Amino acid sequence: MFVIVVYDVEEKRVTRVLKYLREFLNWVQNSVFEGELTEGKYKEMEIGLKKKIKIENDSVIIYQFEDESRVEKKTMGKEKGGIENIL
Amino acid sequence: MFVIVVYDVEEKRVTRVLKYLREFLNWVQNSVFEGELTEGKYKEMEIGLKKKIKIENDSVIIYQFEDESRVEKKTMGKEKGGIENIL
Repeated sequence: MFVIVVYDVEEKRVTRVLKYLREFLNWVQNSVFEGELTEGKYKEMEIGLKKKIKIENDSVIIYQFEDESRVEKKTMGKEKGGIENIL
Repeated sequence: MFVIVVYDVEEKRVTRVLKYLREFLNWVQNSVFEGELTEGKYKEMEIGLKKKIKIENDSVIIYQFEDESRVEKKTMGKEKGGIENIL
């Protein structure tokens, strides 16, 4: 499946969430990841994420699609994802 | 079509972009909008967005789907969108 994850978490948890999501997906923009996942990997990510965020203060939205070919993606402006922007 | 817009723009343009996107879509999280658009409205939004951002510094990604029923959405934690958080 194809997955997009957007998050808005408190600053002290940003790096933790970012590093965790990099294990599963590609970083495409500040607080946005996307990528192809198996059902198993998806479940693993979901369970892990729940442990890493604080439900009362943070927000994570996951969009899931069976078929990536049905998603059209358009980027305006500069690419903000990528390893060089993390450090 | 169903559309998700995520943006990462310089602080001085955040309010401008946010207000503009509210004319077309629903605010679901910090820097994330989603909603149903006609082809015409989509084009209008795209043209307007290009004028509002600075291509060299800002980033906007638009994900587009023909059919919303093929998108599954899961929210963890609190809802961060909504008018009360804007002001």
